[in-house]
Amino acid sequence: MDPRLAAVAAVLPPASFSTDPAALAPHLTDWRGQKTGHADALARPSGTEEVEALVRAAAAHGVAIVPQGGNTGLVGGSVPEPLPAAQGEGRADRPVILLSTVRMNRILNLDGEGLSLVAGAGTILADVHEAAAAHGLSFPLSLGAKGSATLGGLCSTNAGGTQVLRHGTMRSLVLGLEAVLPDGSRLDQLRPLRKDSTGYDVKQLLIGAEGTLGVITAVALRLVPAPRSRAVAWAAVPDLASALALLARLRRLAGERIDSFELVPADGLALVLRHIPGTRAPLNAGHPWHCLIELADAEADAPLAALLESALAGAAGDGLVADATIASSSAQAEALWRLRETLPEAERLDGPCLKNDVAVSVADVPAFDAAAQDAIARAFPGARPLVFGHLGDGNLHWNLRPPEGADRRDWLAAEGDAARALLHDMVMAFKGTISAEHGLGTLKAREYGRLGDPGKLAAMRAIKAALDPLGLMNPGKIFT
Amino acid sequence: MDPRLAAVAAVLPPASFSTDPAALAPHLTDWRGQKTGHADALARPSGTEEVEALVRAAAAHGVAIVPQGGNTGLVGGSVPEPLPAAQGEGRADRPVILLSTVRMNRILNLDGEGLSLVAGAGTILADVHEAAAAHGLSFPLSLGAKGSATLGGLCSTNAGGTQVLRHGTMRSLVLGLEAVLPDGSRLDQLRPLRKDSTGYDVKQLLIGAEGTLGVITAVALRLVPAPRSRAVAWAAVPDLASALALLARLRRLAGERIDSFELVPADGLALVLRHIPGTRAPLNAGHPWHCLIELADAEADAPLAALLESALAGAAGDGLVADATIASSSAQAEALWRLRETLPEAERLDGPCLKNDVAVSVADVPAFDAAAQDAIARAFPGARPLVFGHLGDGNLHWNLRPPEGADRRDWLAAEGDAARALLHDMVMAFKGTISAEHGLGTLKAREYGRLGDPGKLAAMRAIKAALDPLGLMNPGKIFT
Repeated sequence: MDPRLAAVAAVLPPASFSTDPAALAPHLTDWRGQKTGHADALARPSGTEEVEALVRAAAAHGVAIVPQGGNTGLVGGSVPEPLPAAQGEGRADRPVILLSTVRMNRILNLDGEGLSLVAGAGTILADVHEAAAAHGLSFPLSLGAKGSATLGGLCSTNAGGTQVLRHGTMRSLVLGLEAVLPDGSRLDQLRPLRKDSTGYDVKQLLIGAEGTLGVITAVALRLVPAPRSRAVAWAAVPDLASALALLARLRRLAGERIDSFELVPADGLALVLRHIPGTRAPLNAGHPWHCLIELADAEADAPLAALLESALAGAAGDGLVADATIASSSAQAEALWRLRETLPEAERLDGPCLKNDVAVSVADVPAFDAAAQDAIARAFPGARPLVFGHLGDGNLHWNLRPPEGADRRDWLAAEGDAARALLHDMVMAFKGTISAEHGLGTLKAREYGRLGDPGKLAAMRAIKAALDPLGLMNPGKIFT
Repeated sequence: MDPRLAAVAAVLPPASFSTDPAALAPHLTDWRGQKTGHADALARPSGTEEVEALVRAAAAHGVAIVPQGGNTGLVGGSVPEPLPAAQGEGRADRPVILLSTVRMNRILNLDGEGLSLVAGAGTILADVHEAAAAHGLSFPLSLGAKGSATLGGLCSTNAGGTQVLRHGTMRSLVLGLEAVLPDGSRLDQLRPLRKDSTGYDVKQLLIGAEGTLGVITAVALRLVPAPRSRAVAWAAVPDLASALALLARLRRLAGERIDSFELVPADGLALVLRHIPGTRAPLNAGHPWHCLIELADAEADAPLAALLESALAGAAGDGLVADATIASSSAQAEALWRLRETLPEAERLDGPCLKNDVAVSVADVPAFDAAAQDAIARAFPGARPLVFGHLGDGNLHWNLRPPEGADRRDWLAAEGDAARALLHDMVMAFKGTISAEHGLGTLKAREYGRLGDPGKLAAMRAIKAALDPLGLMNPGKIFT
């Protein structure tokens, strides 16, 4: 074994360190199967003390660390770089350790009256949901990968999902955070305080850093009372402006009870119906856009369905809604949600496409989409946009399928970068963001270098150099 | 004029720069009248471009800058240091410019459908409230100084107030932020995006930095639908554990409709009744603690008073509430709020005391308060704690009045530091924070150096050195 690796291995129990390629293999390829990287060893620390020892030793011996949670990231941020890029300039033989948080998966505390939960960074999101539900509470962040995604990874990408409209992104749900910084010191900010105004809130830097500023080891989360009333509707709208007008009308009636306001296009629904068994169309065909709406209330027996019905009827009268249905049972509500939640899977089964994750101000969505549709149609005739996502947050997965009949991989290889750049240029013209909830990883790092706010980029580089002067934490990510 | 100051003055219009001592004077003493600092000039830039020019010139010529908003800070952070400390070691003659954001006070945009507002850093909080209300919306952060406090200062201290329980602190209400960094470059993150996952969220560092990492020039805020129903109650409780049990009971009934849950002690109410004209006791005397509770709902005619009544009746049956009253008109609700909001002013009129701003986990409040009361009584016999604040957030203004009959200033000079240190030690034993919403400024900087998380402090120092290597931004604050 490389003596530098051996020096790191020496500070860990044997169960926490392995160089077995078979053990490493599942950690090296990303969920979408688009990138396979290289690491020399797998560390699976059992707790924060082992992470501290590991990071200290790695810093002393010049060993790079790639932290990994559930490995469900979509931008290549959670797997190491391929050789030789993993090692960076002038460090051609620097060893790389894949640090999996898989064993740090315990829920450490749940305070029902204080509405907080403390858990290890490797805790899976679905387990947090379950623990909260057992106390009549809810952790209001959910996304498709909830069965695998971990708290550490969700923090590291400032994950979003389908309830951001009401409850905010991961950042707004983190009350406390513990991390091991690149020099091996511990950031001890785990206490679930509702207020703290003592200087720079360093934990905010770890949120969204994609592992480049240290290893998140544990998190304290904000919980909310579990909703005891719920109503779900599926509404067909003629265009995006009508969808936003419907949202505004709902806001006036339902205030903050709107949990989700999701967008599904006709093409997206068709893909789901084709690829996902047991799904069926909730309305007659022929509508260009659909909104999936959920209202929720902590009060039992809140008249949410009546509220939805009144809002939808009023909107129909104004021509904003062409047709709609309200779920009359939990099973129906789940069936409607399934049409939205399986859309990424249906898209994956349909074949390769260009995936994007952009956001603009909510009010700008219709103009942005029209401009992007137009620009793409002109530059890439036949390419098929598939636009869905979190309309209430201005966050669209503005994906692009190659033209009908084209070899998808060939087309993406030839045109993908240019199409993405064109879309991103349009996003920047609307002062939006090229990554709303996925992060930069490696997939979007170069584009962010091209388009990001120069003031922010310079500050990011200065912060990275100050906290990780050796560049050992998740090298190759975020920065280009 | 000092040639370095002259070089800075040269980049600004004459109306934006003055060395007139009469113009400077109102900016040099803090609101509590406890500290008067020194500055050589007053800059009142009209907009971001002037701030950029000023900061660039100041950096080039080694001139320090103290940013100031409404100057309502409570920890000495918003005024410059007295001579010679203002200048720092080895920089005995470094000039200091007081940068007032007073002219950058325009509301630049209000998006009623997108629920956001963009305004200059010098905009006064009450003006934001008014602008939002005119659109049927609300900016849900309020505090006693709302008629003077500015957005820049509220961000710089991550201010809290009386609605944090439901809506979070300033940090959770900031969607976008523009700032000029210490090298004069612009952080251009003003767009009101609901989601953005593009690397380190640098604006989070400016929030809570108290002007030590740059000058905040504009802010994009999150608005919420204005409440159209509201109910306010005043409840007497036998002890803090009962108050928390009442809060838990309310949560089960009212979910997220609880806007405020404030604590007023018998002594605090007595001070208000004595010093604030037109106030009267809402209940018969003799109760040790009072809770001021507000429920709010965006829906009109929500049955909030009935909900409060049922919660209070149930709590009374369990012995958690000794007596209570529910406001039956807006005037009565305002009268109850006035008892809470004028408490700091009543305290000020009563004479000097030791002011604190601590927080622990909500569940720890009763045990912490008991331990602190006991420790203070033993070490400082006769000293009179006055504990009030934001119980729902675990945030107590755990203030201490000198013993009856003592010369207050003498007692505070002799015992103040030791009493504060004892209280802070107790806070740390409960893993709380010594500043929940006021910041560190100069008043708490040394205590934070003594008690703060070493990992966080080291990271803070590294960040400060990376972004402000010359130490020109608000010198003497936060760090000791």
